[in-house]
Amino acid sequence: MAERLIVVGGDAAGMAAASQARRRRDRDDLSIVAFERGHFTSYSACGIPYWISGLVPERDQLIARDPATFREQFDIHVRLRHEVTGIDLERREVVARDLDGGGEVREGFDTLVYAAGAVPVKPAWARTGTQGVFGMQTLDDGAALRDWLESEPRPRRAVVIGGGYIGVEMAESLIQRGLTVDLVEQADQPMSTVDGDMAELVADAMKGIGIQIRTGLAVTGLEERDGRVAAVVTAEGPMPADVVVLGLGVRPNTALAEAAGLPLGPTGGVRTDRRMRVPGVPGVWAAGDCVETLHRVSGMPVHVPLGTHANKQGRVAGINIGGGYATFPGVIGTAVTKVCDLEVGRTGLRERDAVAAGFEFVSVVAESTNRAGYYPGARTMTVKLIAERPSGRLLGAQIVGWSEAAKRIDTLAVALWNGMTVDDMTALDLGYAPPYAPVWDPVLIAARKAVDALAGPGR
Amino acid sequence: MAERLIVVGGDAAGMAAASQARRRRDRDDLSIVAFERGHFTSYSACGIPYWISGLVPERDQLIARDPATFREQFDIHVRLRHEVTGIDLERREVVARDLDGGGEVREGFDTLVYAAGAVPVKPAWARTGTQGVFGMQTLDDGAALRDWLESEPRPRRAVVIGGGYIGVEMAESLIQRGLTVDLVEQADQPMSTVDGDMAELVADAMKGIGIQIRTGLAVTGLEERDGRVAAVVTAEGPMPADVVVLGLGVRPNTALAEAAGLPLGPTGGVRTDRRMRVPGVPGVWAAGDCVETLHRVSGMPVHVPLGTHANKQGRVAGINIGGGYATFPGVIGTAVTKVCDLEVGRTGLRERDAVAAGFEFVSVVAESTNRAGYYPGARTMTVKLIAERPSGRLLGAQIVGWSEAAKRIDTLAVALWNGMTVDDMTALDLGYAPPYAPVWDPVLIAARKAVDALAGPGR
Repeated sequence: MAERLIVVGGDAAGMAAASQARRRRDRDDLSIVAFERGHFTSYSACGIPYWISGLVPERDQLIARDPATFREQFDIHVRLRHEVTGIDLERREVVARDLDGGGEVREGFDTLVYAAGAVPVKPAWARTGTQGVFGMQTLDDGAALRDWLESEPRPRRAVVIGGGYIGVEMAESLIQRGLTVDLVEQADQPMSTVDGDMAELVADAMKGIGIQIRTGLAVTGLEERDGRVAAVVTAEGPMPADVVVLGLGVRPNTALAEAAGLPLGPTGGVRTDRRMRVPGVPGVWAAGDCVETLHRVSGMPVHVPLGTHANKQGRVAGINIGGGYATFPGVIGTAVTKVCDLEVGRTGLRERDAVAAGFEFVSVVAESTNRAGYYPGARTMTVKLIAERPSGRLLGAQIVGWSEAAKRIDTLAVALWNGMTVDDMTALDLGYAPPYAPVWDPVLIAARKAVDALAGPGR
Repeated sequence: MAERLIVVGGDAAGMAAASQARRRRDRDDLSIVAFERGHFTSYSACGIPYWISGLVPERDQLIARDPATFREQFDIHVRLRHEVTGIDLERREVVARDLDGGGEVREGFDTLVYAAGAVPVKPAWARTGTQGVFGMQTLDDGAALRDWLESEPRPRRAVVIGGGYIGVEMAESLIQRGLTVDLVEQADQPMSTVDGDMAELVADAMKGIGIQIRTGLAVTGLEERDGRVAAVVTAEGPMPADVVVLGLGVRPNTALAEAAGLPLGPTGGVRTDRRMRVPGVPGVWAAGDCVETLHRVSGMPVHVPLGTHANKQGRVAGINIGGGYATFPGVIGTAVTKVCDLEVGRTGLRERDAVAAGFEFVSVVAESTNRAGYYPGARTMTVKLIAERPSGRLLGAQIVGWSEAAKRIDTLAVALWNGMTVDDMTALDLGYAPPYAPVWDPVLIAARKAVDALAGPGR
């Protein structure tokens, strides 16, 4: 009889694992069943804000592969709308509830991939069932929000709570749909994914398109009328709202894992080894937004829920389950986003992370342009580098710019990944032509500035 | 008395050296004189095609710093239109001819920076003094071409000879000015700076804007009428031309260096050590398009005339002359260009270079998109990787794409610089968001494909 692989969670990580395992082992050797509580498999959660705004017109454009494709091309059986309710490691079986049919399914496994994803952080006041309040984690969440935005009475005033990536992207999407948008952030600035000096550039751009930013303010409750949200309650009084989007971050979805006895790490995510095995639990693997991983710069465990890591981790698990060898060596915190045409990229540690990790460092900010200054369309690009003192090793980098800026962070990410010093970086052979860079690339200009900062004022 | 520094050549390398030396040593410690035979200092030669096309309207936009700035801000004395005619290492003096005044100047030095740049390759038939034939190396060359294009009878038919960067960029510029353009290339394809499969994409784009490409064809002479060029002569007959632009490459300008006894390397460029000292010749430094440098992948000397290297090498020489410590560790052959909105990037070795260097390798071509497939404006991006077999070490990479493509080569350049294997690269933490990349970045997709190719068909 074929070995039985069960995948808990049918999104990026789970389906990447299933596909890679199948690529190496045929159906006679390995049967694969995936349980997914939602309506969709393998979709781009990161694309949801663009579907909400209308920039991406059709929901199905966000779906990479549907269950029929998995069945026909990969012989992988996906059970949609089946929520796994228990994992029994002794009996080697999972129990799942059919959310539509209402029945219960039991399925045995030899090998299990736990890829249950993440769940949005919801304060108690957001869990009261008031209509018009949305987390934004799954395509089902996006579909519910879209329906709400198109319902009557038509929502006009949105409050977005939380100024991280999702909050900022959703605020822009809702502005583009014609709503008024207040963004409420507990800290003194939104976009704290970059340092304050860089975040300020982003906040200015947000205000520029009409997003009202309220900082240093916590939401403590909701007001409702006829079961529909009417306002969010803050220390400064109520803010009227016909729709509320939560952008308070997500946490690993580990309830099942915990109940089954899988080990969790200090970040709350499932622990894995480099091959994505759950340590001490033979035959069980985990991948995606539910796991914690190593930050290669700080050396500490982190929880970084991002589709690109989920895909890579799932691929690694699947290759190993398939009998190959692959490892996931951790992350360095690279992220890019677009806010009102402003491009933002970051990698490695922010200043506060570097302090927390115990590093001494210098940080420099260099302003330059994306193209040769004389070339039409040249726009400002601001590059920040954080380098260990005295070694000069790059610890982190951030870029904010108006055009062709965000993906330049990859150059810095690869330098960081390889442990380069800013001094080494000044010699890097980067592409130069007037349409793409000044003769001193913005990255090189910043590296030179960091070298000077390390040498001190006497230089 | 102050030490005397003489700089031969007042463009990128020479003036970067002078500026950096001055930054560390004041006028009482070091006097600096630079001789430049042209009319300009520190300009962007790479910007000339865009000035010819009119995209950059004013010549002076290409000039980073003029002699007055050098004098006032840096106390560096630039003698424009002074051509150095001899370097006497025994007497420690240079002789220069005043090209406008006609006199001769002798100037003693303690330290010399040789930064004489490069000269366009000109076959014998192009050196006959026929009017309307232009090399394209200096701003003076560009000015002469612009004057010619605006002279009467107004030139209408251009022939560009040579399909490298300058040839291709000039062909496009001349099309944009409304001329008909034939590009004649001796090899079977223009843009041989990338492999044939990638060059084909570029050739298609060139044809798309109306450039007539004639390959496998050598120019053997010129026809003239009243001293003005009338046609270029080829084995397939004459091609009418009112203006001819030579894009046959450049060679190091070493006549003076050779006469003075400076050591030249196998590429014909001046040899230097890592600090940009000329070995065996105390007090003499060299930098820029006149030197050869180390290719870090092949381990062989190469001549790569490019403003970014010239600036870096000049900076390194200047820091060392100033009493600091800096090295130029060589190049990896990164280059980017824009051809008719098509973006082209390369780094490391092409297939033919890898063969010449004695490597065994696999090469893969992966087609992907610059953005998530569903995100508006997603365009095809083609990434080629060349990886050593069996080590998997990246040897070279090329990218061709329609938008936001060229500078992605930097990601690969930094990976190559650090000796990464394609297997390591599959784990790289690169920026992901739908406006900037599919969830599997084009670079990662290509790396995965290369890993598969290395594993062989059994995998």
